[in-house]
Amino acid sequence: MSRAGSVPVVADECPPEFRSALERILGAEGLKGRESIALLGPGMNPRNLGATLMARPASAREAAQVLALCARAGIGVVPQGGRTGLAGGAESQPGELIVALDRMNRIEQVAPLARTATVQAGVTLAALEEALAAHGLSAGIDLGARGSATIGGMVATNAGGIEAFRYGTMRARVLGLEAALPSGEVLEEMSRIRKDNAGLPLRQLLIGSEGVLGIITRVVLELVPAPGPRRTALALFPDLDAAIRVMRALESGRGATLIAAELMSGNHLELTARALRIAPLVELPAAAFALLIALSAADDDGARRALESALEHAVESGLLIDALLPKNAAEERDLWRVREDWAVDRTYPGGLWYDVSVPVDALARYLAAARARLERHDAQLRLFIVGHLADGNVHFTVNADRPIVERYAEIAAVLYQGLQEVGGSFSAEHGIGLEKRASLAAWAGGTRLTLMRAVKAVFDPAGIMNPGKMLPR
Amino acid sequence: MSRAGSVPVVADECPPEFRSALERILGAEGLKGRESIALLGPGMNPRNLGATLMARPASAREAAQVLALCARAGIGVVPQGGRTGLAGGAESQPGELIVALDRMNRIEQVAPLARTATVQAGVTLAALEEALAAHGLSAGIDLGARGSATIGGMVATNAGGIEAFRYGTMRARVLGLEAALPSGEVLEEMSRIRKDNAGLPLRQLLIGSEGVLGIITRVVLELVPAPGPRRTALALFPDLDAAIRVMRALESGRGATLIAAELMSGNHLELTARALRIAPLVELPAAAFALLIALSAADDDGARRALESALEHAVESGLLIDALLPKNAAEERDLWRVREDWAVDRTYPGGLWYDVSVPVDALARYLAAARARLERHDAQLRLFIVGHLADGNVHFTVNADRPIVERYAEIAAVLYQGLQEVGGSFSAEHGIGLEKRASLAAWAGGTRLTLMRAVKAVFDPAGIMNPGKMLPR
Repeated sequence: MSRAGSVPVVADECPPEFRSALERILGAEGLKGRESIALLGPGMNPRNLGATLMARPASAREAAQVLALCARAGIGVVPQGGRTGLAGGAESQPGELIVALDRMNRIEQVAPLARTATVQAGVTLAALEEALAAHGLSAGIDLGARGSATIGGMVATNAGGIEAFRYGTMRARVLGLEAALPSGEVLEEMSRIRKDNAGLPLRQLLIGSEGVLGIITRVVLELVPAPGPRRTALALFPDLDAAIRVMRALESGRGATLIAAELMSGNHLELTARALRIAPLVELPAAAFALLIALSAADDDGARRALESALEHAVESGLLIDALLPKNAAEERDLWRVREDWAVDRTYPGGLWYDVSVPVDALARYLAAARARLERHDAQLRLFIVGHLADGNVHFTVNADRPIVERYAEIAAVLYQGLQEVGGSFSAEHGIGLEKRASLAAWAGGTRLTLMRAVKAVFDPAGIMNPGKMLPR
Repeated sequence: MSRAGSVPVVADECPPEFRSALERILGAEGLKGRESIALLGPGMNPRNLGATLMARPASAREAAQVLALCARAGIGVVPQGGRTGLAGGAESQPGELIVALDRMNRIEQVAPLARTATVQAGVTLAALEEALAAHGLSAGIDLGARGSATIGGMVATNAGGIEAFRYGTMRARVLGLEAALPSGEVLEEMSRIRKDNAGLPLRQLLIGSEGVLGIITRVVLELVPAPGPRRTALALFPDLDAAIRVMRALESGRGATLIAAELMSGNHLELTARALRIAPLVELPAAAFALLIALSAADDDGARRALESALEHAVESGLLIDALLPKNAAEERDLWRVREDWAVDRTYPGGLWYDVSVPVDALARYLAAARARLERHDAQLRLFIVGHLADGNVHFTVNADRPIVERYAEIAAVLYQGLQEVGGSFSAEHGIGLEKRASLAAWAGGTRLTLMRAVKAVFDPAGIMNPGKMLPR
């Protein structure tokens, strides 16, 4: 991603009669034109707000009417939640209609005994977690963009993040959903239970569909007990195998629960710690990999003791170079900042991001081979790695002294080699969007692509839903 | 279900040239005729073996060639695993071709570090669990038919069972799959990782598709650590609310893990215990509901102590009528026998089964209302209940002094009232098959049914896959 930037020149607009038909469905408050859109933040992609018209439905019914209108008029629709996607899935152009879910931001029900939450699609993850905390519950999913990412967008992209190794991706959190369809109908599957085998699982198609089938308007999530007090540490490893051994030991340890195992390559840790001027981290010895480990337990003292004893044990086993236990909340925040900060991209702008999954037993060998191939391919390229170790999900940032945005496909070919053979994926949690369309076509092959296109045509025969994304015609 | 029984009279056969074409694909060992089929057990449904020809592919490629042949010849295909389904999904008729997965029974890989197992579809759950136990791992799913049910069939029906409240249904266990399609192609999505967003999620469509789209031939499952030593107890409750409170307390208790919370109505417990002549259970005081509770912990003593102290606490809180802790393994087996035995059906043959899910917070009210409606509808009907309390999945057996098999739809209408409004499901874990087709049509409504039919047509344009099941034309 990380494209150069400016919104493209406005070439055309939606026709005026289309606009007035929209206004009849949505009312004045439900529509934003060019000037109002310009006041919004584009989110993670400067091209998200390329369209000059934005519909803001207040219900699934309104959204479905808007989609039916667009299908008749042949107007492309770009659904938008928090605009935090990293694969270009929310990019829009003049002549297209953005459908924003920001007015559908109500938490309709939190049911503590059944452990379900019923929310409108525009609710942010942070707002939901705040409401759930009062009940000692959590959505069981967490990611860096928690303040802006919406539940609807997270369902549409089958978001993963930090806790997916415990509770699965968003697909595993969704019990029911409601979606507006291009036919003008509403798909209503608002189950609040896990066991629900009522015909072909249509809602599963919507989860991870990246807006190419319809617009998710409401969701029922299954909740989990909120974790107890959390303690975080940073551990430095000479190689990935050692990090994996310690991670698995922490996972099966009793008395405390592993709630995060965030991986960073040594160069990510070093560069980011320096950029953020976090002195204790800058002073650490160099390592091949660092792991941000968080444990939770019944009480704070239990979490601290479990973490200390696990790290001591790892040091004695010769698996660790060093470890750092923060002395206070500010130091703990620093550890998370060094994981989530974008200093690498600020330092070397115009880099490329990749997002792969590798089975944990194949990860070390894959990473070593990918690194070696990249080095042979072009010794000028730098490779930074962060990721979620327990589910084998690693994010690469590849950059050089000058921007390399035009080299996406060339470098993808180097990095994706051998992934399919070990049962990995070239597309872990950021989705396909615009960015990985060519990779998807190469990866999935004819049988899958043909089926995907035919399934899309069932929902969206006019081809108006998020045009050009995931499955270009 | 529980139909009267005899295999229908053979009206027609597959044409001889079709049979010889099959033999060219499968070899002599890959085909069974009428006489060989007659030697097989029909499983849970006497009509499963109505067809007079059975293909036994040894690979996805062979299965796909068989399906392509059937599509050209217009021959209906009935996939069969362990034939343990309870909704008629594996019934077959003369003129149809059974495709049995019994030759594809190899566990291809168990990967302890990545916690994945790669298996062919015909592997039974019991065989897999035996192989996993050596690694301290489990598939994280369990059901009464574990000895015969196959992984392929469990994926095709999105099986649930006893542990779904902890680890989800089969959908949550599947990382990758391979399926033979009527086009003659093989859908290959054998991922070994959780995070995999590579276009529209085709494998999700196959999970729970009950054989109407294609035939699942191989599966990658995510594994979980095998539970520690288990202790079981039987607790008697005056009402369901008390059972739910105790179940939730056990679920969030520390030091031990709730691994089963199996519900039985008082009349099920009493009748089954008498039929099995389990004296200690016969002597228990009458209760509205009984709960079979299993806890596991790091060691046997820990599990026992956790269970004892939880039950003592419940008694002190006045929630329990009585509880029974088995003194040895034989007594523990007796508890499980009383849950899993079919004495109710033997005592009152010709009864009807229903399988619903209800959010836990709506369960007590729903059950009381359903019971009252049934009583008003026909005071001669008896209602027995077993189920999985923690996910709100209850199984009804309705019977009378004489068989009532023809009254399925009439009684369904009484039982399903109010279910959709609370976010429940009329079809929890047994699937639609033949039995619930009419209920599905009424439940899902036109929008969903039309989409399901169109999606089926994408995979199976000739309509050969499990004809008449789930979505009749």
